[in-house]
Parts: sequence; C-alpha cells; structure tokens
Amino acid sequence: MNNQRVDGHTSQAYDAEMNEIVNDVLAMGELVIQQVERALNAFINADVALAQEVISADTSINDMEVEIDDKCVQVLVKRQPAAGDLRAVIAVIKTIKDLERIGDQAKRIARMAAKSDNNVLPPKEFHEFATMGGHVTQMLHGAMSAFRRMDADEALKVALLDKQVDSDYEAILRQNMTYMLEDPRNITRMVEMTWVGRAIERIGDHARNVCEYTIYFVKGRNVRHTNDEELQAIVRDN
Amino acid sequence: MNNQRVDGHTSQAYDAEMNEIVNDVLAMGELVIQQVERALNAFINADVALAQEVISADTSINDMEVEIDDKCVQVLVKRQPAAGDLRAVIAVIKTIKDLERIGDQAKRIARMAAKSDNNVLPPKEFHEFATMGGHVTQMLHGAMSAFRRMDADEALKVALLDKQVDSDYEAILRQNMTYMLEDPRNITRMVEMTWVGRAIERIGDHARNVCEYTIYFVKGRNVRHTNDEELQAIVRDN
Repeated sequence: MNNQRVDGHTSQAYDAEMNEIVNDVLAMGELVIQQVERALNAFINADVALAQEVISADTSINDMEVEIDDKCVQVLVKRQPAAGDLRAVIAVIKTIKDLERIGDQAKRIARMAAKSDNNVLPPKEFHEFATMGGHVTQMLHGAMSAFRRMDADEALKVALLDKQVDSDYEAILRQNMTYMLEDPRNITRMVEMTWVGRAIERIGDHARNVCEYTIYFVKGRNVRHTNDEELQAIVRDN
Repeated sequence: MNNQRVDGHTSQAYDAEMNEIVNDVLAMGELVIQQVERALNAFINADVALAQEVISADTSINDMEVEIDDKCVQVLVKRQPAAGDLRAVIAVIKTIKDLERIGDQAKRIARMAAKSDNNVLPPKEFHEFATMGGHVTQMLHGAMSAFRRMDADEALKVALLDKQVDSDYEAILRQNMTYMLEDPRNITRMVEMTWVGRAIERIGDHARNVCEYTIYFVKGRNVRHTNDEELQAIVRDN
C-alpha cells in the first residue's frame, strides 16, 4: 500500500483514478437507463424475449457496482484525499448503490413482463404507464447529466420532478383499484400492474437520491431527508 | 482540518472516534428495531395511536443517519485510516443507509396501521404476519449483534435466515390473492396487506445487507450480490 503524499504526484494520480471512476459511473448509468427503458418496453409490448434479456443483463450492473466500489476504496486507501475530493468519492459510493437498486427495479419490471399476457389489459392503462415511464427516464437522464457536470442547479431541477412521478403512481393505484372492483377477474393482473407502478415510482426515488449526492458534493452539505423547499434553499444559497 | 499523522496519537484519536461512531450505530439499530416491533404491533392490533408514534419517530432515525454519516466523513478526512480501519468506516456508512431504509419500511407499515380497520380481517392472516414479523425482528437483533461483535459467522447465520422471510412472504401473497378472489369486498384491504407483507420482506433484505457489510469488514471481501453458497464459502474459508 502506498501512503506517500508527494503532493503533485499524488494529486495527479488521484485525478487520473477519479476520472476513470467517473467514467465507470457514467457507463453504469447508461446501462441502467437502458435497462429501465427496455424493461418498460418489454412490459408495455408484452415482449417476453426482451424481458429475458433485461433479466440476464442485471448481473452486469451488479458487477459494475462491486468493481467501482472497490476502486473507490482503493482511492481512499492509496490517495487519502482531502475534504472536497473525499466528498466526491463518497458521492460516487452512494450513487452506484442507488444505480444498482434502479437496476433491481428494472429487473422486477422485466420479470412481470416475462410472465404477462398483456392482451387482457385495457389500453388506457398502458398509456398511463408509458407516461410515468417517460417521466422517470427523463429524471434518470437528467440525474446522470447533473452528475457528469457536477451541476447542483440541474440536480435540483431533476430532484423536484419526483413529485410528478409520485402523482403518476397515485393515479395508477386508484385506477387499478377501480378495475379490480369492476371485475374480480382483473385482480391477479391488477396486482401485478400495481407492482410495476411501484417499481417505477421507486426508480424515481433513487434518481432523486442521485441528485442529492451531486448536491452534497457541490455544496458540501448533506441534503438527505430535506424537503423540496429546504433543498431549493440549499442549492440557491451560494 | 488536521492532516497530521503522529502515529500513536492519530491511532488513539481514531479509536476513540470510531468507538463513538459504533455506539451511535448500535443506538440507531436499537431505535430501528423498536420502530419495526412497534409498527408490527400497531398493525396487528389496529392501534392507531401507536402507529402515529412510529410515524413521528422516523425523523429521529433520519437525523441519526445524517449525523453518523457526517462523523464518518470527518474521521476519513482527519484520520485518513489505512485499509482495515477504512473498511470499518465504509461498512458503517453502508450499514446506516440500510438501517435508515428499515426505518422507512417501519413507517410504511405504521401508515397502513394508522388507516386500517383490522376488524374486517380473517384472524389467520394476522397469525402469518406475526410469524413473518418474528422472523425479521430475529434477523435484526442478530444482524446488530454480529455488527457489535464483528462476528462474520454470526452475520452469515443471520443472512441465511432471509430465505425463510422470503418464503413467509410468498405464502402471504398467495393467501391474499385467494381472499381477493373469494370476495371482491376484500380487495382494498388485501392490497394494503400485500404492501405490509412486502415492507416486512424488504426489512429482511436490508438486515441481510447489514450482515454482508459485517462480513466485508471482517473478511476484507466485497460479498454483495453473492448467493448463499458463495457467502458460506467466503466466511468459512479462513
């Protein structure tokens, strides 16, 4: 283990290693977004083959998390970064955990898609899932873009979109309940639909978390468990 | 910021600070277990007042997470611990995140309890929830005990209990589906019951994660996303 701190050298080595890590995170983010988009398509189009692909690709995401996590620990051990740089490493460790969980949710959606017979579904239902899916993929793209540019303002904007996803989900829940009450033959199917809605809603939460880590890195303040108003005040207070 | 490394001194300071952090985590763990137990009681006994208490106590858990997380970052910045000690700090950062999520699930159960009228429920259903609840609280006590003693063998034993919780959950799911098909008037209630079952199942997953971090610390190997057999091999391979 190298504990030397020949400063210019250590700092350059740190920069190079962090650069590599950030690129790894961006690659992981791209794969995760792709998984979510494909899982939603598999579900909406009842595409069992595509769903199977999503399910088997999930291990790559898990591997990426473990690999990046190990690299982060290596950087901490070898480079012993000071406060600002340390925050970047911590932000990465947390970000990849949420990305991995988004991958889990995509796999969950794909599993539902793999066993579904979507022909029995009222078409209107799909429309609402597509809308909600559109909102979370927008959040994911935005969260990764804010991470790449370490842009707290963009991160804030994306975090606030989570409210919309939550209300999309409430609408789906209410609708599913109505379909079940209308015709008990819809029950099994509607419970599955509710799981999928819930999975999409969780993806929105994780995207918001990723934004919070970016804000934490840029602003140097832990913004977990703050409400929308507090979050805005922290980002705007320069 | 103090970057000096006068070794004996730094190491003593590190020990003292880590001790404090470990005690904080144990206190957080106790509160989290209490929240889970109270949420389950509130749900099973339809105790709305108790449910409200659980809901309002959740912010304390969130505050503890933020506070311990900040202390960990401070230790990393000031003490720049070497590999083994660094692993301990990372294990703590991850552990408190899962504890905080367990708290969220307890709050979710309490919310269902707060709006429930449990008198309409078949008594058998409660029995199964109580059994499943017993299994996860056993896991939580075990996970915190393994953490306190940094005992990889105990952590492994607890991690393997998660299979039982998963099968408890499958049984509840099947049963809920049957009740819904029997009588559509059960639907709204059964969907809520399914959420609660799901929340308990998630608590089991988080307890397993906490065990994995303890194994990571003791064994120096990242054991996330390994299956039961791999996990056993890592713990037993000394």
